Amino acid sequence: MSAHPHFGEVAVIGTGLVGTSLLMALKKAGVVDRTVGYDANRARVHLAKERGAIDRIADSAGEAAASANLVVLATPVGTLATVLGEIAPVLSARPQTLITDVGSTKAQVVADALRILPHSAQFVGGHPIAGLEKSGPEVARADLFIGRTCLLTPVANTDPHALSAVHGVWLAAGATRVVELAPAEHDRMLAFTSHLPHAVAFALAAAVGGEAASLSGLAAGGFADTTRIAASDLVMWRDIFLANRESLLSALDHFEREWGKLRRAIATEDARAMRTIIEAAHAGRQRILEGGQ
Amino acid sequence: MSAHPHFGEVAVIGTGLVGTSLLMALKKAGVVDRTVGYDANRARVHLAKERGAIDRIADSAGEAAASANLVVLATPVGTLATVLGEIAPVLSARPQTLITDVGSTKAQVVADALRILPHSAQFVGGHPIAGLEKSGPEVARADLFIGRTCLLTPVANTDPHALSAVHGVWLAAGATRVVELAPAEHDRMLAFTSHLPHAVAFALAAAVGGEAASLSGLAAGGFADTTRIAASDLVMWRDIFLANRESLLSALDHFEREWGKLRRAIATEDARAMRTIIEAAHAGRQRILEGGQ
Repeated sequence: MSAHPHFGEVAVIGTGLVGTSLLMALKKAGVVDRTVGYDANRARVHLAKERGAIDRIADSAGEAAASANLVVLATPVGTLATVLGEIAPVLSARPQTLITDVGSTKAQVVADALRILPHSAQFVGGHPIAGLEKSGPEVARADLFIGRTCLLTPVANTDPHALSAVHGVWLAAGATRVVELAPAEHDRMLAFTSHLPHAVAFALAAAVGGEAASLSGLAAGGFADTTRIAASDLVMWRDIFLANRESLLSALDHFEREWGKLRRAIATEDARAMRTIIEAAHAGRQRILEGGQ
Repeated sequence: MSAHPHFGEVAVIGTGLVGTSLLMALKKAGVVDRTVGYDANRARVHLAKERGAIDRIADSAGEAAASANLVVLATPVGTLATVLGEIAPVLSARPQTLITDVGSTKAQVVADALRILPHSAQFVGGHPIAGLEKSGPEVARADLFIGRTCLLTPVANTDPHALSAVHGVWLAAGATRVVELAPAEHDRMLAFTSHLPHAVAFALAAAVGGEAASLSGLAAGGFADTTRIAASDLVMWRDIFLANRESLLSALDHFEREWGKLRRAIATEDARAMRTIIEAAHAGRQRILEGGQ
């Protein structure tokens, strides 16, 4: 466990739900003196300022990073390489600036950071397991990370002090568990526990919703829950699907195998096979949700 | 809207979550003098009695129905034909006894009732859109149906007075909307809004849970919600899948089409196709959950 760090200035690039919530949490924890934000969407960064998360609005990612002690990249993962390129020049003269991100996939951004940043040992990939199907600074809240797990993906050249500081950032924000794992392992695991469920929910909501408006009002809570994450942000999830293609395709294969078994059981009225799959579902769900690590 | 009916004796055959909750709701509403229950599982019927839902335990389905004014069939749909056969003899001399059920599929039970019951005009197929992923009398509650929709599936020979009385039963139990539709139409709709989501959730939970215990603790709320209904009762859902095979296979086809599109989009890194599917998911979910009828 790290002691809470303290920062003179924290910059967030991408003032959506997670970026804005992190600033609110760090301010509330009293571990930051000043905050600065940048977002390509001007309305979003102004809203983040109105909500008290940001003290100063920057005009570019580079300007946001120019005087920060910690830079948090919180844009959709598809834009992270571009953002790294924009902040790299101003970081050349600032070897002590910590950089982290909150992206839902890690292998690509870690590789990009190593390639693009002048002092890449200061970069620590991060991914707080927290989020909502809603997005934007309007739903940000200081308690978003309380009790949650944050995953960090250090690599061989990561500065241990940088890792320790980012670890402390998430504890200060309220996370109760910080787990370190390799970027590729992160992406493989999250493909199963998060990306696959989103893919399933998107396809399900599209299939049911495409059928007929006549189904309105006949859906029980089961449909609402099962498709809750199908309301998730378009650009964020498009980028995740693009960034984690290989691990995700493997997870999709696993789903298709179980799906195929269940479909065959239904088509052939095979009650025993249905039992096997439903029992596997019961056990599997319990294992994932209740098992400790 | 029907005025609340009043019954001297209501029998429930199958004292699981829905059957027990219905008795609790009707007792609370003061529309029943006595209740009787039967369940092949003795522990379940005793628990329903302990919870105050049942005044008297019957030793068979026939005995339960012998003196009732309303008989509610609340066993898994796969056993309904058997139960109809068991109560038919005692109903021959009781042409006024109302019979209804709470099964999640309707075409088969309605056809069975027409074929098996001596006074089948008194049978009204029913399906309250309420339930939990938990099952059994231990989780029953008098408020389970409050604010919910109940679907009724009368056919040409259904006695209008019987229909009106069963309508009133559900309003008395707290339902705010009672919708009548044809049995086949019910099954086609529910295949999409309920049975397909369950199939998806079972396959997803089995796929993710089968991967590795190492995923424990890395699942966000999305996985928990998306697979909540994967914890649903084995026998109940096996029976639904068997009973609604044709409509369900059609719904599975719809899902597979959307799934196939999304999979191809991921495999070919087709960002535009991903956008199309995610937008369809957003719109579809909203249409189903927010649209009125």
